[in-house]
Amino acid sequence: MSVPPAEPLTVPTLPDALAHAAREVEAALDTLLPLPEGPEARLAEAMRYAALGGGKRLRGFLAIETAALFGVAATCAARVAAAIEMLHAYSLVHDDLPSMDNDDLRRGKPSCHRAFDEATAILAGDALQTRAFEVLAEPNTHSDPLARAELVLGLAAAAGARGMVGGQMIDMLTEGRELDTAEVSRLQALKTGRLIQFSAESGAILGRAAPAQRHLFAAYGRDLGAAFQIADDLLDAEGTTEETGKTAGKDAAAGKATMVAALGPDRARAHAAMLARQAADHLAAFGPRADPLRELAQFVVTRRS
Amino acid sequence: MSVPPAEPLTVPTLPDALAHAAREVEAALDTLLPLPEGPEARLAEAMRYAALGGGKRLRGFLAIETAALFGVAATCAARVAAAIEMLHAYSLVHDDLPSMDNDDLRRGKPSCHRAFDEATAILAGDALQTRAFEVLAEPNTHSDPLARAELVLGLAAAAGARGMVGGQMIDMLTEGRELDTAEVSRLQALKTGRLIQFSAESGAILGRAAPAQRHLFAAYGRDLGAAFQIADDLLDAEGTTEETGKTAGKDAAAGKATMVAALGPDRARAHAAMLARQAADHLAAFGPRADPLRELAQFVVTRRS
Repeated sequence: MSVPPAEPLTVPTLPDALAHAAREVEAALDTLLPLPEGPEARLAEAMRYAALGGGKRLRGFLAIETAALFGVAATCAARVAAAIEMLHAYSLVHDDLPSMDNDDLRRGKPSCHRAFDEATAILAGDALQTRAFEVLAEPNTHSDPLARAELVLGLAAAAGARGMVGGQMIDMLTEGRELDTAEVSRLQALKTGRLIQFSAESGAILGRAAPAQRHLFAAYGRDLGAAFQIADDLLDAEGTTEETGKTAGKDAAAGKATMVAALGPDRARAHAAMLARQAADHLAAFGPRADPLRELAQFVVTRRS
Repeated sequence: MSVPPAEPLTVPTLPDALAHAAREVEAALDTLLPLPEGPEARLAEAMRYAALGGGKRLRGFLAIETAALFGVAATCAARVAAAIEMLHAYSLVHDDLPSMDNDDLRRGKPSCHRAFDEATAILAGDALQTRAFEVLAEPNTHSDPLARAELVLGLAAAAGARGMVGGQMIDMLTEGRELDTAEVSRLQALKTGRLIQFSAESGAILGRAAPAQRHLFAAYGRDLGAAFQIADDLLDAEGTTEETGKTAGKDAAAGKATMVAALGPDRARAHAAMLARQAADHLAAFGPRADPLRELAQFVVTRRS
């Protein structure tokens, strides 16, 4: 009698893995953002409106997928993914405000201040940020308080004045002015790159990975984030509102500094492809189980929405 | 030869203790909010404008004073005090925005969106919140990551949708409507009480105090916060803009629900005095070193600004 063959390692396809992560994120957000009684229910409604039911969940996917590589419990990974998506959702709500990008559309539906009102949108964004940090610090996220503190630190560094909000400030201050590629690259690293980088790192933090491994995921996230942002700018320049669910052509109309403006679309596309390959290469040591993460790098530069 | 008498326990007077804490908070904020190079400097300027150079530092004083009772290092307590004051400053910046309370004056100078612009004020508030959580999670705040995680959790619970921001939402939704005393009391507990309560608790968390002691400081902070808010509403109703550095009479003009509106000034004053006595009583077991905290309870209901 022959020994039965070892069960082959089944690695889900990228679309399956993305859909799975999106469902996990959605379920976690639904649990972590309950609807209270009383007059403050409107605040929770606005928070849920902004955070639930939409988006590619790229950041949440990165957290869930890297955590799985380190054998982290799915419920813990989903909490971190949801916290990161809350932080991301808050930034979108505030970015869309009339005094900021003044955008009426988000994910194909009215932006939060259009669906509610400006004051409610400001408060909902504020409370989503608070809740993100709260979820990371709660014992259910990790039994080791050091991991929880490191998650809070990582998210704060990615999101604050030396990260996302700093990038948003630069973005606004440089509107209508031409930036060179180094300036655009720094702006985008702050505005979107750092949070995507942290998303990829967060699974390694949850998994108490060795520093060298954590750095590989940070490097992957950094290059992936840069590639993603260039692809996003190409979509803004070349896509339609129907395809992307966002107002198309806004960057050029607002005189925003993008890599497309700095390099032209063809060189920008080539640069994004190079970054995507570089991102995948950081994970060469992680075998087939990292295939979805490597494929993701290709996906972000070829997607149409 | 007689033994020299034991050095008497010197307890500073309340004004000295308040002035000392305000200096400590100011120095810590100055260190923790550095001015970077580059275009994002404007963001840091707005953050410093909002956080530095003003206010009674009531919350910072509570953190510093309670931490001292538990023998916590002054540098650690000052970091927590600064983080809480950053959180408080962010809430003032956002509350003052045109779509919220639309207030041009804060601490006797132009509010942040008047001194800068609306978008910068939104971003500065956002980044101050982020920085508050970051400071709490940094190893310099406490060697034990569990204490750091508990500080993050406590601040988030006080500041989020079930705390300060929830209270702000209720405040806006109930404008122009009469609330009964229970409703006003709940609104104010959320809007300002929870953060003052956490400020008093934070020193006990830093000092790894036993739960029973921590609860006493929470109870002190809760009653103190309630007394403080009623006193604040009395000042708004009866003080002048020059005395308080804020636009006077705004609450009545905006039809805000306050204990003054619900009870009338005399009964509101008596209620505040009762809460202040109750606050002091929670600390009966802590001897003369808690005198400044007990005196503070009297001070908040008798102050003129």
